[in-house]
Amino acid sequence: MPATPRDEFDLIAKLTTDLPVIEGVQVGIGDDAAVVQCTPGWSLVATCDAQVEGRHFLPDHASPEELGARAMVVNLSDLAAMGAEPRFALVSLFIGPATQTEWIERYYAGIRSAADAHRVAIVGGNVTSTPGPFSADITLLGEIEPDRAVLRSGAREGDAILVTGSVGMAAAGLLAETNPQAVAHVNPHALARVREAWLRPTPRIRMGRALAASGHATAMIDVSDGLAGDLGHVLAASHLGALIETQALPLDAATREVAQALGRDPVDLALYGGDDYELLFTVPASAVDSTRALLVSLGVAVTRIGWMRAEVEGLMLLPSSGAAFAIEPRGWNHLRPDTPLPVQPGT
Amino acid sequence: MPATPRDEFDLIAKLTTDLPVIEGVQVGIGDDAAVVQCTPGWSLVATCDAQVEGRHFLPDHASPEELGARAMVVNLSDLAAMGAEPRFALVSLFIGPATQTEWIERYYAGIRSAADAHRVAIVGGNVTSTPGPFSADITLLGEIEPDRAVLRSGAREGDAILVTGSVGMAAAGLLAETNPQAVAHVNPHALARVREAWLRPTPRIRMGRALAASGHATAMIDVSDGLAGDLGHVLAASHLGALIETQALPLDAATREVAQALGRDPVDLALYGGDDYELLFTVPASAVDSTRALLVSLGVAVTRIGWMRAEVEGLMLLPSSGAAFAIEPRGWNHLRPDTPLPVQPGT
Repeated sequence: MPATPRDEFDLIAKLTTDLPVIEGVQVGIGDDAAVVQCTPGWSLVATCDAQVEGRHFLPDHASPEELGARAMVVNLSDLAAMGAEPRFALVSLFIGPATQTEWIERYYAGIRSAADAHRVAIVGGNVTSTPGPFSADITLLGEIEPDRAVLRSGAREGDAILVTGSVGMAAAGLLAETNPQAVAHVNPHALARVREAWLRPTPRIRMGRALAASGHATAMIDVSDGLAGDLGHVLAASHLGALIETQALPLDAATREVAQALGRDPVDLALYGGDDYELLFTVPASAVDSTRALLVSLGVAVTRIGWMRAEVEGLMLLPSSGAAFAIEPRGWNHLRPDTPLPVQPGT
Repeated sequence: MPATPRDEFDLIAKLTTDLPVIEGVQVGIGDDAAVVQCTPGWSLVATCDAQVEGRHFLPDHASPEELGARAMVVNLSDLAAMGAEPRFALVSLFIGPATQTEWIERYYAGIRSAADAHRVAIVGGNVTSTPGPFSADITLLGEIEPDRAVLRSGAREGDAILVTGSVGMAAAGLLAETNPQAVAHVNPHALARVREAWLRPTPRIRMGRALAASGHATAMIDVSDGLAGDLGHVLAASHLGALIETQALPLDAATREVAQALGRDPVDLALYGGDDYELLFTVPASAVDSTRALLVSLGVAVTRIGWMRAEVEGLMLLPSSGAAFAIEPRGWNHLRPDTPLPVQPGT
């Protein structure tokens, strides 16, 4: 029996059967293109992101549903970082010779569950075979009120730098999962927490919407490649430097525990690990308290981790004792094997 | 020296340098997502299509610029088949270990040239490495006036079936290119013509726009998988059968010449070859003449090849002499190796 289904159109029909009816979809899957209705006056926000088996995910360490949901979440997170409302998705699958049909169906079910959770309509896509690994490329379309998108370029001198939730936890999850012997004696509850952070990240859609609506966020990005690299993009776009207080980084107790077992500094996991999908943003110092209150009301903690500084060149880390020192503002890089913390497998 | 560039962000910067300024782009490449402005009141039209090296294209038989342009054209053709105006594109690249940086740059230049030719703004994308073959996945966004999109489902009993340009020519081009000895004695001018049809298809954007505006086109699709398969989608969506007059199929003299040298029936190339990117559409019988005049004024020939018939089951072919016979309404299928004419390589 062949590993791949024999008919492209049968597979598409099966994957997309009974898609929910979602407002704004005039023509969904099944024609040359989708036709959708956007909200009058709003801007369209578009992003895409690809997931390659062995590069971005390890099929042996997660269920296909988890991996599919995560492929959608990384895109949702990009829209969250603009302050946009997600609306429509196109899902492009590359099916390798070894990929089982059942696995694909479960992966797609994961994509659908993450889309459903945010009322995103899957309106199009593509299925092709490849001699390479299974890959998925999702394009996500959203909307935002005019002139409200929060860019990377708007941070100003003296702005506070904040981050939602906790950072470094996803990297701890990946390292724990791929080094089971090293973490054999770690509390199973901590292991479950870091695994969850790695495999089931939550896109901060409502928080991104609220931050954009508040008018206080001057710059925003999601933490996908590691805090240092992602903040580095904000610094470059805003033409400013930043000072980060090491002590302030929101490290979960589970992250610390796993990092210790692995002989890693949890700060490194936060700075270079990535995959946290938290929101990293800047607000004027005067708006820190109200912003914190706003996000707490939405159920997420937020931590001030540093300041934007014109006189600082690049990114500097201020330890709890001693002088500040410069670090390289970069994280994961998909074409660069010498990335600081090569947590992504297969590269 | 490594075959792939060492820095994802450097490569993106290089590929996307000096993108033209195009109206409607508020935030282009370089943030978490693009922000664009759509035309008030119009509907958004979205499609995506992937090209895998060895599956959809043969790097040894075409320049990287031709292949890149073609990757964009197949998407433009899908928008043409809706009657939409193309606006914005996201380009996702999967870079294999053997792909040279210079080849990628030239491929992307091809994408850009096809985008520029239609005033499409490249506003986003993704770059990732893969252990598999080089692949590109392009999402194209367009717009159309409200309720004007021409779907596959609108054909009516008695409608005439028309096709622009000529069909089977791209398949002749591929077969000629991959069987050089068989076509060694064919007139070089004919070979150049079929090669051009295969590698440099023209998306029928203006024709699609005009057909949608005319109000006469009841159903439309582009010929990407072969006329039989693509018409099959219209039949299924419109719940009708069709009768095609073999004699009427617009076969170019070059297609006939190459087919003869290859021992192939040119009609088979037209029905099952695909990659022609012509528009296949239906209009009421009363509108055939005005539709022909409209398209001729835009510089493209159009041919009536048959009729939609409720009493016909599926797709029937009426030869110049003899009785009509049923054929399977299917063309190229990306997961099915037993496709009638396996012109796509590597499957």
